[in-house]
Amino acid sequence: MRSVAERSAAFPDVQQPGTRLDLDRILAAREKISSVFRDTPQFACPALGDVLGCEIIIKLETANPIRCFKGRGTEVVMSGLASSPGRKTAVCASAGNLGQALAHSGRARGLGVTVVAATSANPAKIDSIRRLGAAVELVEGDIEEARQRAREIAAGDKALLVEDSENLDTCEGAATIGLELMEGGDRIDTILLALGGGALATGVGHVVKSFSPTTEVVCIQPSGAPALALSWRARSVVTTERTDTIADGVAGRFPIAAVLEDLLAVADHVPLVEEASIKAGMRLLHKHAGLVVEPSAALGIAAILEDASHYRGKRVVTVICGSNVPPKAFSEWIKDRP
Amino acid sequence: MRSVAERSAAFPDVQQPGTRLDLDRILAAREKISSVFRDTPQFACPALGDVLGCEIIIKLETANPIRCFKGRGTEVVMSGLASSPGRKTAVCASAGNLGQALAHSGRARGLGVTVVAATSANPAKIDSIRRLGAAVELVEGDIEEARQRAREIAAGDKALLVEDSENLDTCEGAATIGLELMEGGDRIDTILLALGGGALATGVGHVVKSFSPTTEVVCIQPSGAPALALSWRARSVVTTERTDTIADGVAGRFPIAAVLEDLLAVADHVPLVEEASIKAGMRLLHKHAGLVVEPSAALGIAAILEDASHYRGKRVVTVICGSNVPPKAFSEWIKDRP
Repeated sequence: MRSVAERSAAFPDVQQPGTRLDLDRILAAREKISSVFRDTPQFACPALGDVLGCEIIIKLETANPIRCFKGRGTEVVMSGLASSPGRKTAVCASAGNLGQALAHSGRARGLGVTVVAATSANPAKIDSIRRLGAAVELVEGDIEEARQRAREIAAGDKALLVEDSENLDTCEGAATIGLELMEGGDRIDTILLALGGGALATGVGHVVKSFSPTTEVVCIQPSGAPALALSWRARSVVTTERTDTIADGVAGRFPIAAVLEDLLAVADHVPLVEEASIKAGMRLLHKHAGLVVEPSAALGIAAILEDASHYRGKRVVTVICGSNVPPKAFSEWIKDRP
Repeated sequence: MRSVAERSAAFPDVQQPGTRLDLDRILAAREKISSVFRDTPQFACPALGDVLGCEIIIKLETANPIRCFKGRGTEVVMSGLASSPGRKTAVCASAGNLGQALAHSGRARGLGVTVVAATSANPAKIDSIRRLGAAVELVEGDIEEARQRAREIAAGDKALLVEDSENLDTCEGAATIGLELMEGGDRIDTILLALGGGALATGVGHVVKSFSPTTEVVCIQPSGAPALALSWRARSVVTTERTDTIADGVAGRFPIAAVLEDLLAVADHVPLVEEASIKAGMRLLHKHAGLVVEPSAALGIAAILEDASHYRGKRVVTVICGSNVPPKAFSEWIKDRP
């Protein structure tokens, strides 16, 4: 694991965890992000807290044109691309949300974007990417095949390859969520973060551990897509043969070593949750908070449902990271009773 | 109708419409409102715009602990009560949202609150009011009987009577939504506002007509609760015998004359919409924007559905004013097909 980083210039008294991320760059990143993605709502939801036996604070990242948090990262990426000489196009592999975000940030700056997605990706997300003006290439397989094809396109077209989570801008953009939570100033006992590629978890985790080291950082994966969680437990990269989860936004098989190191520096606990708990989480968020969320955004509530006593009486923040969900599937998922 | 008001001190070049409201007080009101109710998301929803044939900008007032906009007004009311000598309790009649808001703002300041509601009111809202620590008194009848009882309590207890919309703080608190939209700086062709007692419509309307006189202000009531709309058309107060709408949050029968005058000064158009259109609006907001909204928050989309050609190609803001809805009823309403 990396050693603890230098102290930041802006916060000389703050000791940062030893990740690739840096508070001064995160502060600078915030200035590059359109206001439509910043300063998102953070609020208590007493009705949901009553059901779960703890105080629930929702950090809502879905009230923007792309219905997810990923615009924070792609704004930083594309702001850098716009101001750099040379190549003016970017390419990424995406199950949907990163693609929408990159398309949005590219269009806002007149930059070309190609998104490679698996044919199995959520069609509503693919439609949105096309509506935002990006070129879409579909490949057979899952997100890992899409990542391979994106690398080929980047090499051939000399386009900027945006590898979610490996690209530090995507992590430091997501980290601005943490700044907003810390500026809120209230005590946070635990923060619940969906764990996919790792940008959200390591980004927000870095900021939270910098300013509030005693806050527990819990990063959650579905049991059906456990690669990064297993890697965290083994303290070395573990890959899986397949994924099997409705939480398409967090379903990777090949964790990135550098991201795993960051995760080891910030995560206190990395639980795996069952599909039934994810659906129950979606149902509770819909019923008690009036929110439509995609499965990955319900991982935090699922973690509470599977380990209620651990959270009892605590002040818990859950980041609602996306709401891009096919309406019919959503209706089915929230109908289930365990 | 009142004459055009003085110009404001803060905006000497701005000509305000002739309502009871005042821009300088609205600016001051903003400082009294907790940040949890301010600076709410405002964002384009291309998926919904595609369906409706216009550009839709959502101003989302539901991502806060009481899931509606009314905290803006009650923060101003209770901030005034806290700093004034003498009585330290407030009473209101409410179908639910005003009651929740007043309870929230009272608890935050250690002030007592009594809410009078009709036995017919939405039970989820009543539960929330009690959870926020307010005393609740239920009366037979509808909101008008509740208003009468609130007046009696106020007289007996010497409590501050908070009459929604008549109380200028409730209007000027709501008006801060307009400030945020105007500060956004983008052109708005039309703004769609739910019309209940009138605080939201006259508050936001006052600010919009001050800074952007060519923006069309459309205030919408359900056909089943048309009293203020009929009054606007007649240019004098019209009362109705009963209401019959799922949009409980806007279902009054006795418009307030002073509010009607304000409305005459700011509204360009006051359509009535059918129940089927309200349900269709809720369905579209759920499907394409991922939002759970209460019926009153769907009045704007209902208005577009009933007069699509009027809105074609325009840049339209709709204020999503509340999401307090019984989950079972919501599921039924969005299932309907016209």
